[in-house]
Amino acid sequence: MCNLKEIQIVDATLRDGGLVNDFYFEDELVKALYRTNRLTGVDYMEFGYKASKKMFDPAQNGKWKYCDDEEIRKVTEAAKASWECGPDGEGKGGHGSDAAGNDWPKIAVMADVGRCDYQEDIRPKAESPIDMIRVATYLDTIPGAVEMIEDAATKGYEVSCNVMAISKSDEYDLKGSLETLAKTPASVLYVVDSYGALYPDHAKRVVDTYLEVAAKYGKKVGMHAHNNLQLAFSNTILAKKLGATWLDGTYDSMGRGAGNCAMELLLSYLEREGFEKYHVTPALPFLDDYMEKLKAKGIVWGYDLQYLLTGRLNQHPRAAIKFTKEGRRDHEAFYHEIREGNIGK
Amino acid sequence: MCNLKEIQIVDATLRDGGLVNDFYFEDELVKALYRTNRLTGVDYMEFGYKASKKMFDPAQNGKWKYCDDEEIRKVTEAAKASWECGPDGEGKGGHGSDAAGNDWPKIAVMADVGRCDYQEDIRPKAESPIDMIRVATYLDTIPGAVEMIEDAATKGYEVSCNVMAISKSDEYDLKGSLETLAKTPASVLYVVDSYGALYPDHAKRVVDTYLEVAAKYGKKVGMHAHNNLQLAFSNTILAKKLGATWLDGTYDSMGRGAGNCAMELLLSYLEREGFEKYHVTPALPFLDDYMEKLKAKGIVWGYDLQYLLTGRLNQHPRAAIKFTKEGRRDHEAFYHEIREGNIGK
Repeated sequence: MCNLKEIQIVDATLRDGGLVNDFYFEDELVKALYRTNRLTGVDYMEFGYKASKKMFDPAQNGKWKYCDDEEIRKVTEAAKASWECGPDGEGKGGHGSDAAGNDWPKIAVMADVGRCDYQEDIRPKAESPIDMIRVATYLDTIPGAVEMIEDAATKGYEVSCNVMAISKSDEYDLKGSLETLAKTPASVLYVVDSYGALYPDHAKRVVDTYLEVAAKYGKKVGMHAHNNLQLAFSNTILAKKLGATWLDGTYDSMGRGAGNCAMELLLSYLEREGFEKYHVTPALPFLDDYMEKLKAKGIVWGYDLQYLLTGRLNQHPRAAIKFTKEGRRDHEAFYHEIREGNIGK
Repeated sequence: MCNLKEIQIVDATLRDGGLVNDFYFEDELVKALYRTNRLTGVDYMEFGYKASKKMFDPAQNGKWKYCDDEEIRKVTEAAKASWECGPDGEGKGGHGSDAAGNDWPKIAVMADVGRCDYQEDIRPKAESPIDMIRVATYLDTIPGAVEMIEDAATKGYEVSCNVMAISKSDEYDLKGSLETLAKTPASVLYVVDSYGALYPDHAKRVVDTYLEVAAKYGKKVGMHAHNNLQLAFSNTILAKKLGATWLDGTYDSMGRGAGNCAMELLLSYLEREGFEKYHVTPALPFLDDYMEKLKAKGIVWGYDLQYLLTGRLNQHPRAAIKFTKEGRRDHEAFYHEIREGNIGK
């Protein structure tokens, strides 16, 4: 069993949720989320990506696709100021601690191999509000990930490596890749079930493979789940039970396609397990006030039948996302289309 | 490991879903569902309740709350006739077998202790199209359940006993009650997580208690889950892995409150596990043509934050159902209300 204090909860709402609304979150939401994460006890808040402005036009994306240091500073400092003395504080704030003694969450951003200018855009830690760089990679871009991990660590950051599309990995190849990553300065190796395709038995095999390598090199293991098979929460608590200590969630499951492990489910569960740091109650007004509004604007995410079908076939959800955007409901024809597509791969 | 052939899938859409729309299902839907269940390989289709017409006014409820033999016969015979020669058959039908060799699902109904006139309303099996009586009981009405089980078995039916609100049971009491039930002619003892409050560790303890008693008396164990914590599917496949062989699902999760284990998730899973009998594809047109229409009519069910909160507190979902009907979205106030209510119990 892992030490209670070792658990680290990461809120990926802006980052994975940003894939749904092109990262156009209003500052008020971001400030409220930062504040909420302090109250709920979340340990890290991922603000978005460090994407290349050369590759991805800033006129086409909200600022959280780039996560400039000054943008992060602007909202976090405003949130801190209102906590200390503003009307939002409501006496819960004060000098940097609340009733539960939680501090502000640490700040994380994600950087994709091949999609960022990390040498320039990631400044030395001493100049930045960011605490952790999460390097996202596929198994076939590991050499690029190693370079980025080393760069970020040299600059003074905590680093994780998040291996995407893990449900497609061959067990033997995976072990070799994890050995390579475990020799880098990354302190956390993440299972990323991008396709939401891991059934519990498969999830267990993958997490156990990670844990074996991680134990050898003194690394931690993380879980980032998607909800195509309504197993995101279940797989996250399964991973925790097996020994993973870094757990991702998003409020109202906001994230690409079927979305993620709901933070509110995770917080409730941790409360019940006796973790005194975590609280679901402060999440409720955030969900009602902010996430409801996003949905009311017509932003769509979350479990639906088409995501079950891509998950069942262990495919990227892009066809299901397109089907959703087109407002189609002919699932039998869709299933036929994606099965045919699958055969060719 | 259990024998593959021992698995029995029960479709509870009309029965648990009927709790959402007061059992007003159109005959066309019921016929399409019966046909769909044959194509997907579902073993039993639960048509509804055998409720007392003296206690529950037939003017206030659809016919599937009562499941008169002749009503069941009417739709099943119409479905069979169209399979054999009608336009719906489309060559898939023929003489009682399809490509997968599946037969028509057996017919089940539920009878609640204290809410039915079973002596009169349940006719001898020889006169009825019903195959199985599912006796639903709370732990404190076991003596009444025993009488009903014996009555149904004497009349020639297969019988299961479905113990509701199991998440509230004390382990020691539960064992004693299961011993009592195991001495009756009921062949299946069901875990019914009415509150959707079982986390996997709790679900495992309960299912293991059932399995221990069942093994001693040669009984089978069933799982009927609710989705308050997004664990209905996960708990169902967990129960199967532990040794439960009777698994309930409903199409599109239709059922009280947060709904049930989605049949389409269960069918996909069983396909993947190599069960040649089960198929998800025939479920897709039924979901698109019929379940979508129910939703379009404004009938509401399924996971939502208020169900998480009653599940987390291990409470009956009635407060969450009321909250949903009232269109409230003030979850923090709601959580406060139900926590206060909880303290008094």
